[in-house]
Amino acid sequence: MARIRVAVNGFGTIGKRVAEAISKQPDMELAGVVKTKPDYVAKYAVSSGIPLYAPSDRLDAFREKGIPVEGSLEDLLEKVDVVVDATPGGVGKEYKHVYERFGVKAIFQGGEKPEVAEVSFNTFCNYEEALGKKSVRVVSCNTTGLLRSICALSKIAKIKKVRATIVRRASDPKEVKRGPVNAIVPNPAKLPSHHAVDVKTVLPSLDIATTAVVVPTTLMHVHIVFAELEEEVTRDDVVSALEQTPRILLADAGLGLASTADLVEYARDLGRKRYDIPELVVWLDSVAVLGGREVIWMQAVHQESIVVPENIDAIRAVMEAAKSAEETIRITDRTLGLMSGRIP
Amino acid sequence: MARIRVAVNGFGTIGKRVAEAISKQPDMELAGVVKTKPDYVAKYAVSSGIPLYAPSDRLDAFREKGIPVEGSLEDLLEKVDVVVDATPGGVGKEYKHVYERFGVKAIFQGGEKPEVAEVSFNTFCNYEEALGKKSVRVVSCNTTGLLRSICALSKIAKIKKVRATIVRRASDPKEVKRGPVNAIVPNPAKLPSHHAVDVKTVLPSLDIATTAVVVPTTLMHVHIVFAELEEEVTRDDVVSALEQTPRILLADAGLGLASTADLVEYARDLGRKRYDIPELVVWLDSVAVLGGREVIWMQAVHQESIVVPENIDAIRAVMEAAKSAEETIRITDRTLGLMSGRIP
Repeated sequence: MARIRVAVNGFGTIGKRVAEAISKQPDMELAGVVKTKPDYVAKYAVSSGIPLYAPSDRLDAFREKGIPVEGSLEDLLEKVDVVVDATPGGVGKEYKHVYERFGVKAIFQGGEKPEVAEVSFNTFCNYEEALGKKSVRVVSCNTTGLLRSICALSKIAKIKKVRATIVRRASDPKEVKRGPVNAIVPNPAKLPSHHAVDVKTVLPSLDIATTAVVVPTTLMHVHIVFAELEEEVTRDDVVSALEQTPRILLADAGLGLASTADLVEYARDLGRKRYDIPELVVWLDSVAVLGGREVIWMQAVHQESIVVPENIDAIRAVMEAAKSAEETIRITDRTLGLMSGRIP
Repeated sequence: MARIRVAVNGFGTIGKRVAEAISKQPDMELAGVVKTKPDYVAKYAVSSGIPLYAPSDRLDAFREKGIPVEGSLEDLLEKVDVVVDATPGGVGKEYKHVYERFGVKAIFQGGEKPEVAEVSFNTFCNYEEALGKKSVRVVSCNTTGLLRSICALSKIAKIKKVRATIVRRASDPKEVKRGPVNAIVPNPAKLPSHHAVDVKTVLPSLDIATTAVVVPTTLMHVHIVFAELEEEVTRDDVVSALEQTPRILLADAGLGLASTADLVEYARDLGRKRYDIPELVVWLDSVAVLGGREVIWMQAVHQESIVVPENIDAIRAVMEAAKSAEETIRITDRTLGLMSGRIP
C-alpha cells in the first residue's frame, strides 16, 4: 500500500513537531512543510532534510536570504493526500478553500473554530467519527488533555458532571513578548470558559463547565478536575483505568515528581527531544474518590506537544489507514516512543 | 470605658499590619510589639513611635545594635488585656502557656493548629462564638477569603456543596528565597487539600472539598469556587448579596481590573499603604449561575492583609467590646478605610 503523502502548512510550535512525527510513521511520507518567514527555523528545516516550501508571494524573501525552497504551497499541495494546517490560530480557515481546490484532505488545529472542519477530534473519544472525512479539527492542547482523562474515566463509569479549572502557562518558552510576569489573570474573566464548549464539540452530551486562569510559567498547563459519576467507583478502579490508557502517565509527587518543573526535568533526563511530553500526566497522589461517586484529580498538559499524536491519528482517520483507535494508537505510540502507566 | 490594651507578639507581615490597625481603633491601645530580630523592621517600629519589646534572651542583641527596647515580652504581657500572636506558623503554640500564665487573652493566626484556641474564627460566620473566649484563632488568608464569600452567599440560600481550587502565590513580595520561579506546583499533591478542613473549623457541617496549586507570583491568591445550593437563585441575587457584604469588593474585568496586577495597581492609585487590599475581591464578570442551583465565581485574596480586620474584630470579641459582628465591622471598616460594593 502506498504511503500517505502529507504536507504541513506552518512550521511553528505544532508544525515542526507534527512534521517530525510524520517522518517517523511507516505508513506516511512527509512531502514538505510550508513556512512564511525565512528565519533560523527555516534553515533548521532545510538542514534537517525537510523539503521546504513557501506561499508564492514569499518565495523571493527566501531567495534573498539564500534559503533554498522547493516551490510554492500550491506546488506542494499538488503532491499530497493530506495537509496538516499548523498555521496560527484563526489563519487556518483562510486556507480551507485552497486545500479544497486541490482536493486535499485537511487536519486543522484547535485554534480554529469548530465550523472549519466536519468533525472535532480526539483519538480516545471519537476516532471512528473521523474515518474518511475530508476535514478534521484536532482540539486544543487543554481540550485534548481533558478529553484523554475524561474518556478514560468514562470507560469505568458514566460521567454525570465535570467541573474543571485550567491553570494555564503564560507563554511558550520561546515567546518573549507575552505575560503575565507577576500576576494571576482570570482568562476569561467571564465564566464559564470556552474550554467546556470545546470539549462538547467532541462529547456533546457531557455536562461540563470550566474556568481558567493564566499564571507566570512556560512549562505546562495544570488542570484540576472534579467529576461526578452515575455509579460508585473505588480509587483503585480510577487509578487502574488511567494506568491502562495509552498516552497517560501517572506521576508520584511522593517520589519527587511534585511540579511541572520536575516533570520537565524527567523528560530532559530521558533525553527527549525538546523535553516534549505528549502524554497527559496525572498526579497519582491527587486521585481521590469522595463519597463513591465523585472523582477529583490534577493533571499536567505539555502545551507544545500533547496534540502531536492526535494529529498523526487524524491523518490515518481521514485516509482510513487505521480502522480503529487502538490500531492507530499502537503505531503512533510505538514510533513516537510514547509511554503509559506509572512513572518511572 | 477603658481602652483595650493590646500587645502584638511578632512584627512580620501580619504583625506589623495588625499593630498599625490596632493603633487606629478608638477603643484600643497598642501597648507594644515584640520582635526577636534587631533589624531594619525593628528600627521602623521605633521610628514609628511603636513601643518595642523583645524576648528576654534577645534584649542584649537589640542593645548591641543600638535599638532601644522598652523591656521583655513578659514586661509587656503584664500591661495588657489581649495579645495578638503573629509569630511564625507553629510558633504561637509555644507561647500559649506564657500568655495563660499572665492571664492575657490570646488571638492566634491560621498558621497554628485549630487546637491552639477555643474557637476558630471569621467575623462573618461565627463572631458570637468568640464572645468572651480566652483564645481565638483567626483562620488563614485563604480560609478567610473562602469564608467571606461563602457566608455572604449562605445569606440568600443554603449551601449544599462547595468545590474550590486555590491558585496560591509563590511568595510574599519580600521573600527572596521562595519559589517556584517557573513551575506550577500541586500543593498539596494529595487531594483534597487541608483548606477545606480549615473552613470546617468554622463551618463544621459544610460539604466542602478544596485543591491548591502554587504559581510564580507574589501579589495575591486567586480562588475558583463552584458552589451548589439547596434553592434556586439568580445571578442578580448573588451579585446583590456580595455587593451588600462589607469587606467584599466587586471588580469589573471589562473595566480593566482583569488580573491581580490590575487590582494591586488600583490599590496603589488609591494611595493605600503597602498597596494592601484587606477586602476580598470577587470578579463581577466571573459570577455565573448554572441551572439555577449552582454558582461559580473567581476571587482574589491579598495574602498579606486580608486577615487584619478579622484580627481586630477578634480582639473585640474576646473582650466583649462589641456584641455583634455588625457592630465591630462598622468600627473596624471605618477606621481602616475598608470598602464594599463595586469598584470603583
